[in-house]
Amino acid sequence: MTEQSEPLVHKYSENGITTLTLNQPGKKNSLSMAMLEALSEELETIASDSETRVVVLAAHGNVFCAGHDLREVREQFDSHEFQLALFNQCSKVMQQIVNLPRPVIARVAGVATAAGCQLVASCDLAVAADTARFATPGVNIGLFCSTPMVALSRNVSRKHAMEMLLTGELISAPKAERLGLVNQVVDEQILDEAVYKLARTIAGKSGHTLKIGKEAFYRQLEMPLAEAYEYTSQVMADNMMANDAQEGICAFLDKRKPDWKDS
Amino acid sequence: MTEQSEPLVHKYSENGITTLTLNQPGKKNSLSMAMLEALSEELETIASDSETRVVVLAAHGNVFCAGHDLREVREQFDSHEFQLALFNQCSKVMQQIVNLPRPVIARVAGVATAAGCQLVASCDLAVAADTARFATPGVNIGLFCSTPMVALSRNVSRKHAMEMLLTGELISAPKAERLGLVNQVVDEQILDEAVYKLARTIAGKSGHTLKIGKEAFYRQLEMPLAEAYEYTSQVMADNMMANDAQEGICAFLDKRKPDWKDS
Amino acid sequence: MTEQSEPLVHKYSENGITTLTLNQPGKKNSLSMAMLEALSEELETIASDSETRVVVLAAHGNVFCAGHDLREVREQFDSHEFQLALFNQCSKVMQQIVNLPRPVIARVAGVATAAGCQLVASCDLAVAADTARFATPGVNIGLFCSTPMVALSRNVSRKHAMEMLLTGELISAPKAERLGLVNQVVDEQILDEAVYKLARTIAGKSGHTLKIGKEAFYRQLEMPLAEAYEYTSQVMADNMMANDAQEGICAFLDKRKPDWKDS
Repeated sequence: MTEQSEPLVHKYSENGITTLTLNQPGKKNSLSMAMLEALSEELETIASDSETRVVVLAAHGNVFCAGHDLREVREQFDSHEFQLALFNQCSKVMQQIVNLPRPVIARVAGVATAAGCQLVASCDLAVAADTARFATPGVNIGLFCSTPMVALSRNVSRKHAMEMLLTGELISAPKAERLGLVNQVVDEQILDEAVYKLARTIAGKSGHTLKIGKEAFYRQLEMPLAEAYEYTSQVMADNMMANDAQEGICAFLDKRKPDWKDS
Repeated sequence: MTEQSEPLVHKYSENGITTLTLNQPGKKNSLSMAMLEALSEELETIASDSETRVVVLAAHGNVFCAGHDLREVREQFDSHEFQLALFNQCSKVMQQIVNLPRPVIARVAGVATAAGCQLVASCDLAVAADTARFATPGVNIGLFCSTPMVALSRNVSRKHAMEMLLTGELISAPKAERLGLVNQVVDEQILDEAVYKLARTIAGKSGHTLKIGKEAFYRQLEMPLAEAYEYTSQVMADNMMANDAQEGICAFLDKRKPDWKDS
Repeated sequence: MTEQSEPLVHKYSENGITTLTLNQPGKKNSLSMAMLEALSEELETIASDSETRVVVLAAHGNVFCAGHDLREVREQFDSHEFQLALFNQCSKVMQQIVNLPRPVIARVAGVATAAGCQLVASCDLAVAADTARFATPGVNIGLFCSTPMVALSRNVSRKHAMEMLLTGELISAPKAERLGLVNQVVDEQILDEAVYKLARTIAGKSGHTLKIGKEAFYRQLEMPLAEAYEYTSQVMADNMMANDAQEGICAFLDKRKPDWKDS
């Protein structure tokens, strides 16, 4: 009862930082079709919300996200159409995070598995509690984590990704940090402090600049070197014409604080 | 005499785990044309052997593999045709490992150099004795490790790969673990224990699922993000229709052990 | 006055090792158009200089390189043409380093920021003093480090690159080593010793072989696996026909020192 009246994704904004919180702890925040649709909708809203400069992706309860909702999946075993729609929707959400013109920080407490681990890998940054753990355990139930590995294998090196995918075993937060899956591991008591310190640092930058930079980052990654340089040289020359760049450079040379105008 | 009557590659299968052992320790298990052909043949057999779920690649003696057979190479200095055939054959074997529908674990004791280091890098996983060492020393003999670097540079970061390739120097097993070339380093006394524990963990999974996952892993790595998601969403929806996925999910929800049917 | 009579880039060659030193410490060795042109010219000369086997890229003063010259940039705020020419010139120099047929080692003391950090990332190898620090702080002045990130994101993993780019904060030399941005960190007192030991090791190899290998390294990185193997198999078979390979292999088998002939 209590959970049904609550939104699947809770949203809270303050000082340019919008926190989206997966809000179905009784179901381990699993990515049911409904949860994916709720998340997609929130991300779409944020994409055109000029107030938000940074997004924090968090979760209620002691499981960050356990991946897909296996009960829902079982009910639709006969429908290839549903399954394809589900994985397409999930892949859409992950790409919305990557394509969002605001940086997204995962705030990970508890266990993040399968598509839950993929969520963490898809964010631009991730801060984890020392008690957090990560796995891609689909192989244990006969369903290889094939979509999660798209994000995982773009975060950690091949042999590490393969070990997680083939064994399905949990890795600790410190190991996740060593592998490159998360940026920082802190005592669970100070997780919010660490996450919002990072969020505030980024929210203090020009929103226009963050948008330009994030978009160019993922685009240039998929280009050969010469093309990447041709593209980003153009991006920087254009960036230089923006008010915020000219203000930022003048402020730096005049040794004063910049006053960002663009969103 | 003793070695000539032995096969170049020794094969042993038990409980779904097939161990291929390079078996020419007197020649440092070098990858002569004959050794490469023997290895290629074994890998081809395993590719269609439904009993094998995991492959362990090991070596007899105190050198894992010293790369190409330089005496053989010298005898053919005049034949560009032979040299090209040799490197093509070697590249074929490395790709057979990557394309094999079973996970392959390198069991590394002793030194793995040049194409021997490439073998380790080409396996999906690698466990090394703490005494193992790795190098791509071709630069020392005027023959840059150009084919080995294809595998090496897809395992470790650029500057680390370049350091190994330009200096030709040996790195220790712990350093290889830090760089991502091997997954795990253990005391030489318990190397087999560690390797076969990992192999048994993986052999306990559905063979069909391992096959789907490994194939999709390497394919999606070479795609841009959007294409990788489109492809793997299809792979997962198809995977969901398989007996083993439906059995695995039901077993998980019913809290019982799955009974895999597919190979 | 003193600086104006000095060249922007100082050059010194000895025993096959050419050291290029950024020589405008009073301007934090910033990459003004003039500095980029001087650097480009030196790299072009070295590309066809058969004496040089290894290049060391160093800097005078206590800042390695602070990126672009913001005063010059500000003077040209109205000229999109100038800005594009500047970033194109900078991208050209970075690619000249990558395409140079000699290995380039960055010798980093002090701070390397923005395009200065990109210089380090663009070199094949980097050795840093323990006091060195690195950042891509463009985001702080409204000008995202979009061209620097091309090199940075090809050295370190995504989340680490994103953290540097989005926060703009300095990282220490030991952290840069952990992330893969530099190969080695040493006490500042022995920086030259470490850099030139590495340079001498590489200068002792066949220049012809280094050239073949470096070129093939960056080319194969941008190819899918099958294509990379087809290309490098050809490279190795061709390499095998070279005097230095045949000399190196014979010397190795005869247990004597090779006598390199090719440059």
